Amino acid sequence: MIIGIIGGNKVSDQIAQTAYLVGKLIAERGGIVLCGGLGGVMESACKGAFEFGGMTIGILPGTDKADANPYVKIPIPTGLGYARNAIIAQTCDAYIAIGGAYGTLSEIAMALNNGKKVISLGSWDLEKAGPVDATFFIQATTPQDAVEIAMAVDY
Amino acid sequence: MIIGIIGGNKVSDQIAQTAYLVGKLIAERGGIVLCGGLGGVMESACKGAFEFGGMTIGILPGTDKADANPYVKIPIPTGLGYARNAIIAQTCDAYIAIGGAYGTLSEIAMALNNGKKVISLGSWDLEKAGPVDATFFIQATTPQDAVEIAMAVDY
Amino acid sequence: MIIGIIGGNKVSDQIAQTAYLVGKLIAERGGIVLCGGLGGVMESACKGAFEFGGMTIGILPGTDKADANPYVKIPIPTGLGYARNAIIAQTCDAYIAIGGAYGTLSEIAMALNNGKKVISLGSWDLEKAGPVDATFFIQATTPQDAVEIAMAVDY
Amino acid sequence: MIIGIIGGNKVSDQIAQTAYLVGKLIAERGGIVLCGGLGGVMESACKGAFEFGGMTIGILPGTDKADANPYVKIPIPTGLGYARNAIIAQTCDAYIAIGGAYGTLSEIAMALNNGKKVISLGSWDLEKAGPVDATFFIQATTPQDAVEIAMAVDY
Repeated sequence: MIIGIIGGNKVSDQIAQTAYLVGKLIAERGGIVLCGGLGGVMESACKGAFEFGGMTIGILPGTDKADANPYVKIPIPTGLGYARNAIIAQTCDAYIAIGGAYGTLSEIAMALNNGKKVISLGSWDLEKAGPVDATFFIQATTPQDAVEIAMAVDY
Repeated sequence: MIIGIIGGNKVSDQIAQTAYLVGKLIAERGGIVLCGGLGGVMESACKGAFEFGGMTIGILPGTDKADANPYVKIPIPTGLGYARNAIIAQTCDAYIAIGGAYGTLSEIAMALNNGKKVISLGSWDLEKAGPVDATFFIQATTPQDAVEIAMAVDY
Repeated sequence: MIIGIIGGNKVSDQIAQTAYLVGKLIAERGGIVLCGGLGGVMESACKGAFEFGGMTIGILPGTDKADANPYVKIPIPTGLGYARNAIIAQTCDAYIAIGGAYGTLSEIAMALNNGKKVISLGSWDLEKAGPVDATFFIQATTPQDAVEIAMAVDY
Repeated sequence: MIIGIIGGNKVSDQIAQTAYLVGKLIAERGGIVLCGGLGGVMESACKGAFEFGGMTIGILPGTDKADANPYVKIPIPTGLGYARNAIIAQTCDAYIAIGGAYGTLSEIAMALNNGKKVISLGSWDLEKAGPVDATFFIQATTPQDAVEIAMAVDY
């Protein structure tokens, strides 16, 4: 099972710690962490997974695999810029959004558009902004809850 | 000046009429309408521009230019699927979002991420969902207002 | 009718002159020139079309429309890097390849893969490298011939 | 080390057997096989790697991971159509082209354009079609030679 982690490139220590725990929990349950491969939430989630033996994949915006954070085991340098978000939004079984700004929002929207479940951990309150299907966009309050919901998807 | 029109592929008559007026007003002011090239808001906006002599460009998800609505003068069949939204979000001077669901939301988010102004006409109330810069995400109530704001951008 | 012009970003004066003539001839026959929007063959072809009143479209690799050469009327900054070649190879009715290196070769191959005709003007001798359908990959010796063949496509 | 395998979706038994051997040899040397994830050369190379414990990644053109052949361990459904070839051409340390038609040719050209080594095993004789740098485009005659050259790259 591949879980997409979406969130900002520069984040607070608290959000980074949340992302680390999410990555660790996914790895402990045998899941693969897939993300944008850069810093912030992406790096912390990869680190959490990496340190507990999990597989990590980074779908990079640039053309150089050296852009990946050091915990990405398989870097995919797409050269597509932000359009690489469309690939991330296509590839995973479920998504956990942790904090984040416009880039994160675009990935949430694309994942929902692709019929995937998105779990928000302190990310956008999308249900306040327009019609959102509560079966697919779910607010969680702890990394444990978020990972449990994500790993339970069975479309 | 290129104005991006974003909105759903199947919409109510009222939203279609709004999109038609927006397209017409852009053409009358000498602007170019760029959109996803399909039906609904996209077709109505193209029709409004087309019938008043405006240029219309459709950035299509598929590989066949015949997918474009009949008011697209220049079809660009990208073959990229939803990732073509990233191109739309890159190419215009400003964006008008009319109604719309997740696909529209992803384009709004990407355009904002690219530092572009987005005017919402009955689209997502993004300011309720998280931190949004009110200089770049603007609610309008009439097609006239929306087009005036969009055509006035001068980054 | 949209004709794709493919060729290098930095070229000799002779190749540039050929590209200029090709652009001029397309515009005179009412065709649209579409290309990668940068310098060299792309710029010369756009200039030829532009100076004779033709429409020119540039599918740019970067995110800034200012990257386009000054003769591009409609710049499409895709942000996709080289993957933008796939869009160019999808969008036109026929292609004229003028000189060029690996990037040009990739566009020729993708256009042929999409079932489009490609006319080579001093570009790759593809028929020497493997099985090529002579109905779709055609060597021309003059800009006049190349444009005549390209504008006559009727799949 | 990630080795890209490029080749057709439907191929002869002989080419399939070559691809199987290439995949096996890469896995035995600890390399990762990355390809377009579909049938033919891609499936045979994945099968060879899979059966000898290797990691296999498929960069799919469509949006459904079920399109991947059964030997792809990590499917990446890009939804980009043929533009996914640009990602394949970016992601690997070296490439082995086995047989193949226009799609294979486009990947060879893009990989060379990205400064990567491409080893041809019965694929295009590119050196006959135009100027090709013999350091980067190399004809091999056996799977053993091809894999040895590919795994030795050290840019």
